[in-house]
Amino acid sequence: MKIYGVIMAGGGGTRFWPLSRQKTPKQLLNLSGNELMINEAADRLLALTDELFVVTNKTQVSAMKEAVKGRIDETHILSEPSARNTAACIGYAAMEIIRKYGDGLMIITPSDAYIRNEKAFTEVLKKAVDAAKSGDNLVTIGIEPTFPATGYGYIRMEGEGEVRKVLQFKEKPDLETAMEYLLSGDYVWNSGMFLWKASTILRKFETLLPDIYADLVKIGDAMNTPEERKVIDEVYPSIRKISIDYGIMEKSENILVVPGEFGWSDVASWDMLGKLHDEDENHNVCVGNVLPISVTNSVLYSSSRLIAAIDLDNIVVAEMNDVVMVCPKDKVQDVKKIVDTLNEKKMEDYL
Amino acid sequence: MKIYGVIMAGGGGTRFWPLSRQKTPKQLLNLSGNELMINEAADRLLALTDELFVVTNKTQVSAMKEAVKGRIDETHILSEPSARNTAACIGYAAMEIIRKYGDGLMIITPSDAYIRNEKAFTEVLKKAVDAAKSGDNLVTIGIEPTFPATGYGYIRMEGEGEVRKVLQFKEKPDLETAMEYLLSGDYVWNSGMFLWKASTILRKFETLLPDIYADLVKIGDAMNTPEERKVIDEVYPSIRKISIDYGIMEKSENILVVPGEFGWSDVASWDMLGKLHDEDENHNVCVGNVLPISVTNSVLYSSSRLIAAIDLDNIVVAEMNDVVMVCPKDKVQDVKKIVDTLNEKKMEDYL
Repeated sequence: MKIYGVIMAGGGGTRFWPLSRQKTPKQLLNLSGNELMINEAADRLLALTDELFVVTNKTQVSAMKEAVKGRIDETHILSEPSARNTAACIGYAAMEIIRKYGDGLMIITPSDAYIRNEKAFTEVLKKAVDAAKSGDNLVTIGIEPTFPATGYGYIRMEGEGEVRKVLQFKEKPDLETAMEYLLSGDYVWNSGMFLWKASTILRKFETLLPDIYADLVKIGDAMNTPEERKVIDEVYPSIRKISIDYGIMEKSENILVVPGEFGWSDVASWDMLGKLHDEDENHNVCVGNVLPISVTNSVLYSSSRLIAAIDLDNIVVAEMNDVVMVCPKDKVQDVKKIVDTLNEKKMEDYL
Repeated sequence: MKIYGVIMAGGGGTRFWPLSRQKTPKQLLNLSGNELMINEAADRLLALTDELFVVTNKTQVSAMKEAVKGRIDETHILSEPSARNTAACIGYAAMEIIRKYGDGLMIITPSDAYIRNEKAFTEVLKKAVDAAKSGDNLVTIGIEPTFPATGYGYIRMEGEGEVRKVLQFKEKPDLETAMEYLLSGDYVWNSGMFLWKASTILRKFETLLPDIYADLVKIGDAMNTPEERKVIDEVYPSIRKISIDYGIMEKSENILVVPGEFGWSDVASWDMLGKLHDEDENHNVCVGNVLPISVTNSVLYSSSRLIAAIDLDNIVVAEMNDVVMVCPKDKVQDVKKIVDTLNEKKMEDYL
């Protein structure tokens, strides 16, 4: 059976502003100092897959082509006319695969997670591939929690062993609940990584999300015809927005989870940059041309100019081309408010 | 009697880094949004004086010439080979005046104070001119305190009226003492502005600072000869460093002070920028291309790029060409440490 990698890379990535912009979202940034996030995601899958796909937003396609050149074929970059959440994204990729390349196993991953231990990740992925190959299983990867995170969804598992049965998907918990989850040993973080056959997931769409399935069939029927682009542009923007978790996973029985620990981090915002870079002795993350004096627990990110900072604690300073951004590290979720304000004020040059 | 204005403009101005640099110190900056500080100082004196002089550091002469063009004649820009504190600076100017232009009244001011009410200042200055014209008086301008400042020196006065006798010069006090000074009504801030005849102050040098006087005479004797520049370059750098306050004022009897209130601020550091600009409703000073969101009691100074700041209190963010500086507003005296560190690390480009 052919194995297809599918990287979901459609995010706008406002939370890393001003580094991330509309045309260069997080997945097109080199946050680790090694490679663009999209290419790190691709490199982790290349050895395990026969074909690799990226699903991204129309506005990012040309930058994406440039970024993944040599790794992913241009024809394997799927363009979403607009963002319709993960169910539409995965359904579109499944339809593309089954109509153009033949049924096979899909390994679906986000483009914006960091994985420190790639070897351990590959081992976990191989087990998940084996579990997904047999029968019509829906398989997900669970991350063994290392702290009581309140920012992630959880999965409650049953039993022991390398592959377990999912009992329940849980929303982001409060701290007390997260502590209970951590201590019980029965919970893993929801990684957003899934494995299943294209035919299996499309049958799930047909049963659980029939309206979306109907739209996907319209698109699939136009594939390999001159009308393909036109139909996608017409149909896709009206597909119902729903996540694969909510639309399919939470409503399905017999989902399997492969728990693993491979140094995974959801690099969602500036305060997570410390997962990708060694901190200095004062617990600062310093990238580029920076001069911290009596600075602690902070993030200084310079793309070119000198950032000189003194007597600060818990502050993020990021400079990129035409912008300087300053924000407390424990308030980085508010960076989105800056982007919202720039939108309101029609200061598009900075978006 | 001729009246000569003398603006002391030799400072390095590290406290406004990164706006102020070695070659563009504070006096060559436009901090108010109206004019360069040196030109604001010049414009305040032009109407009252017959000739206007600037004493500055050799390294700043060419920038100074450019800055004051049309206001101050090139020949009236006196070049100090190195900074030797205010006694040397004033002695040099007095010698220049008496040997080249003839004895007269000197009005000496720093270049880096801000004066909001220029009309009131002119009135005070006129009274001081009258007081200095008669006899061999040493006259200083005192600023009526508006708050218990601990960052300024004070002058204790005797009596009533527009011109009073100085009882004592006081160092920067602690807060309790400053409160007492403020309540007593007998104290004014030391403005660093002085009025006296060139001949009078040179006689004071002869009596109280004979070593410096001897050096000044060497320089004076070379004036109007081809050796003038050479002698200044040889003699000046070895003149003893002492302030006019400590070397002459504190050791003299019968000093007069003219108290005045004309919206004077010593614009010494970033936290003082609010004296020159209206604060917004959150007590922020915002200059240039800045976007504050939930920011209070802060200073955002952009010379070109956007500074976007969110959830900050009591922070200074300044960006200028190749540098971004971030520092708490109540720690702005530490900006000097950044400059010191850049010096140590030989990062001269940023100085």
